[in-house]
Amino acid sequence: MYPLAEGMFAPRNHWYVAAWSSEIGREPFGRWLLNEPVAFYRTADGEAVAVQDRCPHRHFPLSKSRLVGDDIECGYHGLTFNRHGRCVRIPSERGVSQAFDIRSYPVVERWQWVWIWPGDPALADPALIPDHDELGITAGSFETIGDIYYPVPGRYMLMHDNLLDLTHLAFLHRSTIASDGLSDAAEIRDQGAGWISSRRALSNVACPLYFQQTFAYAGQVDRAFGMKSFLPCLHSGFDEFRRPQSDPDDAGGELGTIRVHHAITPGRLHDAHYFFAFGRNFAQGDAAFGEAMVSGLRVTLEEDMTATREIEQLLQGYDVVPDELLLRSDAHCVDGRRRFEALIRAEQGSAA
Amino acid sequence: MYPLAEGMFAPRNHWYVAAWSSEIGREPFGRWLLNEPVAFYRTADGEAVAVQDRCPHRHFPLSKSRLVGDDIECGYHGLTFNRHGRCVRIPSERGVSQAFDIRSYPVVERWQWVWIWPGDPALADPALIPDHDELGITAGSFETIGDIYYPVPGRYMLMHDNLLDLTHLAFLHRSTIASDGLSDAAEIRDQGAGWISSRRALSNVACPLYFQQTFAYAGQVDRAFGMKSFLPCLHSGFDEFRRPQSDPDDAGGELGTIRVHHAITPGRLHDAHYFFAFGRNFAQGDAAFGEAMVSGLRVTLEEDMTATREIEQLLQGYDVVPDELLLRSDAHCVDGRRRFEALIRAEQGSAA
Amino acid sequence: MYPLAEGMFAPRNHWYVAAWSSEIGREPFGRWLLNEPVAFYRTADGEAVAVQDRCPHRHFPLSKSRLVGDDIECGYHGLTFNRHGRCVRIPSERGVSQAFDIRSYPVVERWQWVWIWPGDPALADPALIPDHDELGITAGSFETIGDIYYPVPGRYMLMHDNLLDLTHLAFLHRSTIASDGLSDAAEIRDQGAGWISSRRALSNVACPLYFQQTFAYAGQVDRAFGMKSFLPCLHSGFDEFRRPQSDPDDAGGELGTIRVHHAITPGRLHDAHYFFAFGRNFAQGDAAFGEAMVSGLRVTLEEDMTATREIEQLLQGYDVVPDELLLRSDAHCVDGRRRFEALIRAEQGSAA
Repeated sequence: MYPLAEGMFAPRNHWYVAAWSSEIGREPFGRWLLNEPVAFYRTADGEAVAVQDRCPHRHFPLSKSRLVGDDIECGYHGLTFNRHGRCVRIPSERGVSQAFDIRSYPVVERWQWVWIWPGDPALADPALIPDHDELGITAGSFETIGDIYYPVPGRYMLMHDNLLDLTHLAFLHRSTIASDGLSDAAEIRDQGAGWISSRRALSNVACPLYFQQTFAYAGQVDRAFGMKSFLPCLHSGFDEFRRPQSDPDDAGGELGTIRVHHAITPGRLHDAHYFFAFGRNFAQGDAAFGEAMVSGLRVTLEEDMTATREIEQLLQGYDVVPDELLLRSDAHCVDGRRRFEALIRAEQGSAA
Repeated sequence: MYPLAEGMFAPRNHWYVAAWSSEIGREPFGRWLLNEPVAFYRTADGEAVAVQDRCPHRHFPLSKSRLVGDDIECGYHGLTFNRHGRCVRIPSERGVSQAFDIRSYPVVERWQWVWIWPGDPALADPALIPDHDELGITAGSFETIGDIYYPVPGRYMLMHDNLLDLTHLAFLHRSTIASDGLSDAAEIRDQGAGWISSRRALSNVACPLYFQQTFAYAGQVDRAFGMKSFLPCLHSGFDEFRRPQSDPDDAGGELGTIRVHHAITPGRLHDAHYFFAFGRNFAQGDAAFGEAMVSGLRVTLEEDMTATREIEQLLQGYDVVPDELLLRSDAHCVDGRRRFEALIRAEQGSAA
Repeated sequence: MYPLAEGMFAPRNHWYVAAWSSEIGREPFGRWLLNEPVAFYRTADGEAVAVQDRCPHRHFPLSKSRLVGDDIECGYHGLTFNRHGRCVRIPSERGVSQAFDIRSYPVVERWQWVWIWPGDPALADPALIPDHDELGITAGSFETIGDIYYPVPGRYMLMHDNLLDLTHLAFLHRSTIASDGLSDAAEIRDQGAGWISSRRALSNVACPLYFQQTFAYAGQVDRAFGMKSFLPCLHSGFDEFRRPQSDPDDAGGELGTIRVHHAITPGRLHDAHYFFAFGRNFAQGDAAFGEAMVSGLRVTLEEDMTATREIEQLLQGYDVVPDELLLRSDAHCVDGRRRFEALIRAEQGSAA
């Protein structure tokens, strides 16, 4: 499916953010992920559980059911499943058959994120989850705010297209986080095992409006920003602001740096989930300041949601998606798309 | 279509409840039945009429048109049809051709129910309608309240699945009409010409919450309940409550019995109509008491609507309906489904 | 597509009304026309521009973008297009390639109407637009009110069916503009290059309710009315009221005549646009009177919208559109449909 090759949706043998920790509790909760319905809950000792959100008997959603101890009991005829998806009770029968077992998904909770593995459980190695210390979430000098969620009104790849091409800051986010010359700035690309990155630097440009407020500073800045993309789910970026070299008193002095963490998870074919977190290395411990920053950032995040909705709607107006044209500046984005396709191709014919 | 075999929708050469008498008057009224649009009205002498709800000229709905005497005049260009569907006037022409006749449906009004025959009119024998005296609606010791209608937010067979397996009372209706041990109770099944039945009995169990209120009685009860299903439309059930044999003063004394009558009629492919009536053999003549009982029962009926909506939505989320698994307790339900399929198969290749 | 032959939608090498002049300004505005998304705006000197409403890079709608001078700059990554659809700037690149040019549509503004040519621009001859002087809009004795727009909740041909058969006045508009005997009146049909017409006359009939108010006159009238249809877009009609020949004081004296101009433009496959204007040769210069007439006419226009919605919904309820039956009074309408099909057939295999 566009923008991937026809017939390709999403790679499955990978970790994806499924939910914020705060979303999962003792009341079951349902979400479509990778085009499958998944039910979440916590056991009494707090362990997050993810199982198929469909009773195999009459297709009733388990997320609309209730917990009995650490098991989930179907709200229709009472079939009961444990945290591993094993059917442990059929009220109208003496025993249970393994035929009634449902799928359970490997789940790992890291920081405030609940990661899920939608593919072959045998391959679910938690070491494959990006290291939250290295991301600067659970270690280092950044204070990170999470719990920001948006339902994405379009196919998940539109969000990757967005995050893999930061030249959109200059236009879509013109009134908030854009800088002059941003589209022209040289892109420095890099790659490693499971990730690709892009960064740009700007010298002596006007401080973007949003950051003028953040730093209470209206002068010129040197700005460096970029994104490290751990495909297929997480983009971790930074945006660093310094006084310009020409500043007479504090040449190159840091005004502040933020980190942004964007987790994108496919929902159904034409929607997705967006889990956003951001860190700062300044004004730490000041909760009101953090809340104000989040509040301002939401304007930018909602511009991305609007663009995604507009494009999805336009695409759906056509019987056949029109051809797109590529720019040289799309090289990074196209590289990302090709990697998604390679991940999917690698799974085709596999057991997942 | 699930839960019937692929390509099977509904049998047509049968009587179905189309509406409550109170719904049909001198103002035309439209409803999709068996995946066809039907217009209803009453003649001046009160006879209920059902005709094709589409003018054969320009496809305007006759239910949005007006009556002229006992005929219905299309609201667009005035073609007029009598109660038999015969075209009796074309304003712009001198005569009328039989080519403009539309379909009329055999209709029989019994008690507060208007029954329709969507199939071959030549086969429409009113004697095939379940006997309302025998049902205890128009004769016997029960006072019956009707006029309870729900649009069903799912394919009609989901309601039959529901009504043919009363073990769901213990879970879906946990907080209203459930009893302990209900799922384990032995099912006594029977069958006859055009019907199948199922009943269960429970001894010395707690009175369900809803009936504690009804009978102002919080003790133990002996309970017997069951359903006689006249396929393809009507399920008539009973629920009888007695003091237990252990009651020192009134062993086995009847607290009261209710009768429930569920008529399910296919609408379009993914919705249906639900006409519910219930009778009681106690507190008769007390209208406020009856209304209070209805009001309480609506909680239960809406649980069934919610389950149907949830299952329908889940099914529609899949390209292909996932396989279901059957329990031994599904024997009665599966027998019902097989009878629906047999009724449909019997019509295939017939004139209807 | 019904009511045209299967696979036929709409002729393209023709002028269609795209918008009211008042709808197009310096803020871009989007509308689907002939099943394509079109973005409109005005240049600084007031020229109306219509271009493809989809950036060829990432499918972002240009109508959600902003103007930079007389060019439109994509709101996502800043690709910029001039009024001719020529790509004039790609922010991340030095030059631009003609490959990025988008479609622009010939546009002609006449009176308050913006006409568009969705087909081959080389064939877009403004002389093919119906002459607004001859229509009595920009010359003659009629004062014309425009700016009346309705989104049509059905396929555009349903509106042509409506306007090509005025016998519907007697039924659909029974309570507003109907006259007795209207369906029986002889139809006088005519045709010329690019148009067909129909007219009827009635003698000594009751003044329709709407016009009783208009003329403050409740007596009998001689009425003549008809429509000249410039296919594929515009129907221009008249409705003339005179005192009857039997009037003792003013036999045949004109009460007043109105002109109605209905422009219908296909939107997507199942919706359309309706631009309505009307003129009068009485009470001129009295704006409040004109507004009151419009207000009354809206009842009639909304009856047409309702009929269209009802028919469209009914059609969509069927897998296959049911056969329709034709009346002798449909001759004019069927002639119109055949002309649409001929226009479409003439384009098949052409360059448009």
